[in-house]
Amino acid sequence: MIRQLEYPNAYFTLKTASPLDNIRIVLVETSHPGNIGSTARAMKTMGLSQLCLVAPRCAVDEQARALASGAVDVLESARACATLDEALSDVVLSAACTSRRRDLPHPAYTPRQAAPELLERARMEAVALVFGSETFGLSNEQLAKCRWLINIPANPEYMSLNLAAAVQVCAYELRSTLEDRIMPLPAFDAATHDDIEALHRAMESALIDLDFLDPANPKRLMPRLRRFFARAGLEKEELAIWRGIFAAALKAKNRPE
Amino acid sequence: MIRQLEYPNAYFTLKTASPLDNIRIVLVETSHPGNIGSTARAMKTMGLSQLCLVAPRCAVDEQARALASGAVDVLESARACATLDEALSDVVLSAACTSRRRDLPHPAYTPRQAAPELLERARMEAVALVFGSETFGLSNEQLAKCRWLINIPANPEYMSLNLAAAVQVCAYELRSTLEDRIMPLPAFDAATHDDIEALHRAMESALIDLDFLDPANPKRLMPRLRRFFARAGLEKEELAIWRGIFAAALKAKNRPE
Repeated sequence: MIRQLEYPNAYFTLKTASPLDNIRIVLVETSHPGNIGSTARAMKTMGLSQLCLVAPRCAVDEQARALASGAVDVLESARACATLDEALSDVVLSAACTSRRRDLPHPAYTPRQAAPELLERARMEAVALVFGSETFGLSNEQLAKCRWLINIPANPEYMSLNLAAAVQVCAYELRSTLEDRIMPLPAFDAATHDDIEALHRAMESALIDLDFLDPANPKRLMPRLRRFFARAGLEKEELAIWRGIFAAALKAKNRPE
Repeated sequence: MIRQLEYPNAYFTLKTASPLDNIRIVLVETSHPGNIGSTARAMKTMGLSQLCLVAPRCAVDEQARALASGAVDVLESARACATLDEALSDVVLSAACTSRRRDLPHPAYTPRQAAPELLERARMEAVALVFGSETFGLSNEQLAKCRWLINIPANPEYMSLNLAAAVQVCAYELRSTLEDRIMPLPAFDAATHDDIEALHRAMESALIDLDFLDPANPKRLMPRLRRFFARAGLEKEELAIWRGIFAAALKAKNRPE
């Protein structure tokens, strides 16, 4: 299922469709097949596909496939590497995910701080996020081979994210940052200023007619309603509903018994 | 391990130490004990502690405890509720996590867009994030009871985050935003879930009485009004105004001429 490394630098093909295609998740010395499967699923949900297993301590077995769920393709195209150096050979920016700040001079960032530059580099070149083993994390030697450290913000009393959960958070941050750059605002068929002013006049007149608003002592009722409608933002169809409701109230009041 | 509900409104104690203490994770009809355990772990790593299980379809067993790892305390203090209404009764802002945009969506935000206001509200009042079952998600009726939808940005070809992974992403976003410093929002004396549900019932009954809503052919009127009110967010005083307006309309209709 996982092919042995034959041509160290020929495995990872760079694509230019999306920077996410060039971001590699590197798991070092992972012990539990389930975590490899869950990592594949976490990756695919965020649009990542390049998984690299460095000296795995377990097989990619049925449990891994079960937890990969709809991301078995990511598992099956995973590459095995004997060393971290091999996994990073063509990478221009590598970031090691760790819960501890070490006595290392590496720059340390949160996923949010790191995401823009990781994505920028990944437009044309290979980038890697590196995750250590469940029990021991990454050794100082392994950390030293990466350019950056990534510290996921966490509860200081319990920082122990599951491996696949840490991958999920980093992958989410990458996708989220990417979409924030390109996502248009949701369509909103907004009512015009004139429509809204007309609604306010109609409401005011109806509320007077319904004896809810005393024109001699209006207090803050209309300004409060204005503020409420302003906060919601009115769509054209909603405007029609509200005009209809107040018209129905007046009609019900005035109809002959 | 999970106590039965005896005093519906007395379970959730508000604290003011951190907004994270007032953010409740509500799992609806969860099927797999492992997902409940992994959710507890995901929560604790980000500093969340209030877990609520609505009509769980499984026991909180040894598998749940194993996957909770160092977060067994979150599991053990979890509350069981029979219905979503019970879980949300004292909540001022509820957000349902869903991968689909529905026909008549409530305001829909990414976790990043939603986090600042969720945190701001949670400074003094209860806030909830609601997650559906692994297989079916949340029903439209359950979604309609929440004010906001949360859409986690995801790969359109495979959006299926594991339940605990979705909780991890939302919890990460809350903690991350909190650590990045939250912008204070204007003071807002928010109405509770129970108050808002009562208003919707009163509005529906008034609109029927006013012959504006035909109960035999209700079309999409009430869902549209729900969406409008959800977008605005109701303050306590505004709630009183709206109840007053509909009461006045009924009184005007029914008074003897």
